[in-house]
Amino acid sequence: MQTLPIQLNTARRDINFIIGHSLWEPLRQFLHRQYPHHSLFVICDETVGALYGEAAREQLASHPGWKALLSFPAGESSKSREHKDALEDQLLARRAGRDSVLVAIGGGVTGDLAGYVAATLHRGIPLIHLPTTLLAQVDSSIGGKVGINHPAGKNLLGAFYQPAAIYADINFLHSLPDDEYFNGLAEVIKYAVIMDDELWGWLERDSEGIIRRENALLERIVSRCAQLKIRVVQADEKEAEYRSILNFGHTVGHAIEQLSRYRLKHGYAIAAGMQIAARLSRTHLGYPEERVRGLNRLLEVYQLNRTPLQDFSFEEVWECLQSDKKSRRQSPRFTLMNGENKPELFYPIEKAELEDAFSAT
Amino acid sequence: MQTLPIQLNTARRDINFIIGHSLWEPLRQFLHRQYPHHSLFVICDETVGALYGEAAREQLASHPGWKALLSFPAGESSKSREHKDALEDQLLARRAGRDSVLVAIGGGVTGDLAGYVAATLHRGIPLIHLPTTLLAQVDSSIGGKVGINHPAGKNLLGAFYQPAAIYADINFLHSLPDDEYFNGLAEVIKYAVIMDDELWGWLERDSEGIIRRENALLERIVSRCAQLKIRVVQADEKEAEYRSILNFGHTVGHAIEQLSRYRLKHGYAIAAGMQIAARLSRTHLGYPEERVRGLNRLLEVYQLNRTPLQDFSFEEVWECLQSDKKSRRQSPRFTLMNGENKPELFYPIEKAELEDAFSAT
Repeated sequence: MQTLPIQLNTARRDINFIIGHSLWEPLRQFLHRQYPHHSLFVICDETVGALYGEAAREQLASHPGWKALLSFPAGESSKSREHKDALEDQLLARRAGRDSVLVAIGGGVTGDLAGYVAATLHRGIPLIHLPTTLLAQVDSSIGGKVGINHPAGKNLLGAFYQPAAIYADINFLHSLPDDEYFNGLAEVIKYAVIMDDELWGWLERDSEGIIRRENALLERIVSRCAQLKIRVVQADEKEAEYRSILNFGHTVGHAIEQLSRYRLKHGYAIAAGMQIAARLSRTHLGYPEERVRGLNRLLEVYQLNRTPLQDFSFEEVWECLQSDKKSRRQSPRFTLMNGENKPELFYPIEKAELEDAFSAT
Repeated sequence: MQTLPIQLNTARRDINFIIGHSLWEPLRQFLHRQYPHHSLFVICDETVGALYGEAAREQLASHPGWKALLSFPAGESSKSREHKDALEDQLLARRAGRDSVLVAIGGGVTGDLAGYVAATLHRGIPLIHLPTTLLAQVDSSIGGKVGINHPAGKNLLGAFYQPAAIYADINFLHSLPDDEYFNGLAEVIKYAVIMDDELWGWLERDSEGIIRRENALLERIVSRCAQLKIRVVQADEKEAEYRSILNFGHTVGHAIEQLSRYRLKHGYAIAAGMQIAARLSRTHLGYPEERVRGLNRLLEVYQLNRTPLQDFSFEEVWECLQSDKKSRRQSPRFTLMNGENKPELFYPIEKAELEDAFSAT
């Protein structure tokens, strides 16, 4: 027996996250500079296509490799094998080679689906995210998680695949429906809870301007949250450990999102999940009651406290957690906060304990 | 506009390639040591399952996380979305979490298919290759290429995904049918042509022992070729440039393999591809006539000169190259050898030039 070591040292990748408004021109220049000889495809859902498809064509069709804008039905149910296959078929029918670049314009669903397509076409082609929702700008466009759902659960199939660049254009946020905007604010609140007292302060003090979507506030918040997410992702690209800090509120959140068949939006689901996680943090780890109440107030101000938790059967939620990928063996693990406002990762919670927190919320 | 840099520095991965015979026990120990709390799944095709399924169960069922051996029909046509989906469904039905490890036992098809499954289940679970064919031991198990075919072409969908370890057990090679063994020798000959005169010498001198599959020769050849492949892969994990050296003979090889609907085995296809590439190397780059003849002699000795090239229409081959991912824009690129026995990468070949080489072979 003989052992040959294979030592792979993937080069450092530098990805730019660009925040601002009217970013079509910088994007156009980036594509011309970085991918002058590539074929260029845009992927978006039909809703984004109706709003921005013409602008995208106008701005990007001057690229010598411009090919097509491909779209798919809006909604979480498009994160499926069927829609991945359909996009791949369309790309290959248009002879997308490995010298193709893919621009994904949209929210989390688009980033996940188009990102997974980019990750696996020819074993990976360059991908550029244009996140159009607050949720995508502060969270899902950063970190390289792409994928689709499976009947057995959310995001069970996918990859870690880093984009070449991310262009977060604040202008997109003005066309969001209110509930989609608040949906993103749930993740902003999560960052405040787990990492950033100053951000918490902004959310309390500037709530009126934030609700009115004032540009300066939007840019400040997106920039701050992106920095926080980047800090976590840089520390731990593959989520082995530290990245789980971001799962605060997501254990139960994902379960009820799935049980609602994705009718419940992610932010509203994790808002309820955060209330439960805060409660568990208090009873198990001495997280201050004042913080628990402060979180509830924030969720109220941003209209995120209306998740009808009583519509879900606890037994079904528990069953769902058992099959969730975050449960190792038997007992599901939570990201909680301890008394020093520090996260506790992979904290095991028993069924009866969760049931208490669930019914009290 | 504000730019936040994201700097990702993926840690160095050290993967062991282990060569020898009777490697079940070292594998068993590795799994116990490295993944004591993981669920353990084996994937193989039905042919390998009939030959080695019982041994795999006997050897691995003592692992505390042992779950199941999953199989699929043997053959290139299993490298399809349909079979990937079926394996994922079976894994998820058995509650394969992200704390699962997958052992792929088989040839290139199994490594590619099971590897792609491992790459995308929960965004990637640990994978161990047990290559059972010579082709898989000297080539496809090393380098992290995994994937499936698409009606539009071979390996159009997939990922770069490194295994945790590779166990190349020489014992497997004795159960290979002759044509499968020679199939692997085509890649061995390729290494000799592109990188290793000494290996070329062994193939000429020791042909009788190699054809008899003497253990010492098998181990020497697998070890040597694995070292060559590892050298290339370490230099260039993602195939941007240098890794294309391995494409010698593969441009036309892939095309006729696809046109035969994979009835023609890979090695026999690239054997013909190498003859064409050698001829192009001679006419375009002064590769010595003696080398071209030496290659043809080697292919004859190892029964690889019987590919019925006249059964393929050149027009169809050309059409196929146009849609192949290795063709950038219009003119297909070849890996050729120049007069100094050095590889020339991405050498563009015109239609008429290829037609000459094709008809002369």
